[in-house]
Amino acid sequence: MAYKENYPSRLLEEAVDAIGSLPGVGRRSALRLALHLLKQPAENVHHFTDSVNHLRDDARYCRECRMIADGDLCSICADRSRDHRLICVVENVRDVMSIEATGQFHGVYHVLGGIISPLSGVGPSDLTIKELVARISALEAPETAEVVLALSGDVEGETTAFYIYRQISGTGIRVSTLARGLGFGDDLEYADQLTLGRSIVNRQVFHP
Amino acid sequence: MAYKENYPSRLLEEAVDAIGSLPGVGRRSALRLALHLLKQPAENVHHFTDSVNHLRDDARYCRECRMIADGDLCSICADRSRDHRLICVVENVRDVMSIEATGQFHGVYHVLGGIISPLSGVGPSDLTIKELVARISALEAPETAEVVLALSGDVEGETTAFYIYRQISGTGIRVSTLARGLGFGDDLEYADQLTLGRSIVNRQVFHP
Repeated sequence: MAYKENYPSRLLEEAVDAIGSLPGVGRRSALRLALHLLKQPAENVHHFTDSVNHLRDDARYCRECRMIADGDLCSICADRSRDHRLICVVENVRDVMSIEATGQFHGVYHVLGGIISPLSGVGPSDLTIKELVARISALEAPETAEVVLALSGDVEGETTAFYIYRQISGTGIRVSTLARGLGFGDDLEYADQLTLGRSIVNRQVFHP
Repeated sequence: MAYKENYPSRLLEEAVDAIGSLPGVGRRSALRLALHLLKQPAENVHHFTDSVNHLRDDARYCRECRMIADGDLCSICADRSRDHRLICVVENVRDVMSIEATGQFHGVYHVLGGIISPLSGVGPSDLTIKELVARISALEAPETAEVVLALSGDVEGETTAFYIYRQISGTGIRVSTLARGLGFGDDLEYADQLTLGRSIVNRQVFHP
């Protein structure tokens, strides 16, 4: 339903315009947020805007993995205790955070910054694939190192994985992908055919 | 589901903390918004934060009606063509905008800044009722002026309306409230009993 807007104040209207330009924030939510901020102590609001400005102005991309970093290297690439010969390739920073949250991976990452998608006009040159190839080429004895392609299981993810595989297979590095199969706790009856089919073909040794 | 967070960057974490402190914005949405802002041109992000700071630092409350204003008076109170002897009492700024959007009201407003709610610890002294009484006392010939109590139809709204009525009835000003009844397009069969009952008791002359 169209909502005719009559702002009592230009300042309010401009703040609502700015907040409403964020993805997923509608005009009514933006007004609610603006009126909320107006009621907060000034130092809270300044802390909020300072944090946003600092992120935009001071955050950098890690020289190694292209993740968001406070300095030249991100905290993961700067960590000497991690396995720097095990590189997990992901689409974005959120994927890094999801994998880190599992506590099951002790290598390093490479953030592509997107996925190959001709429909969205994203090609290989828009991603950090060249940087990945250079990273792998700089490794000593690449045949004892490993790249994990941790990309989504949809067509775009598979296309990107295949493209990267072709770019790096010449270096002799081991290439793996995430295991696909039934999720833990999944009911067989409700699994989709493709997942169930792959689960049977790639069946694993039973470790009771 | 709990989501263990591992931020690659303090700057990112602080921005997510700040954005996530807004009402109705969860941690995951805050991360999505922070990563979105990080990808925007710096001047867009600064425009966003400047707008929010300006609103907080420079917006004032109208001397007359307590609405958000850019200067001493809001644009409605400053408008000489409006009827300053017809005062509509509302809970908040959003209500002013909703009524203005109808285009059916040509008087001025009085923003209470809340509603009497003992459960939330809001009493009459937390609202701008004293200011309303002073405004009405300053009117010449109050018996030819009118106050419209445009408050919600729930218990808190009714309580607040009754409290205000007792405060101002001594001035002789006419006091009215919003009409209650079936909404336009409402189906009789699905109307609640109370609304339908009031609609019959307060039936209006048919103007075909």
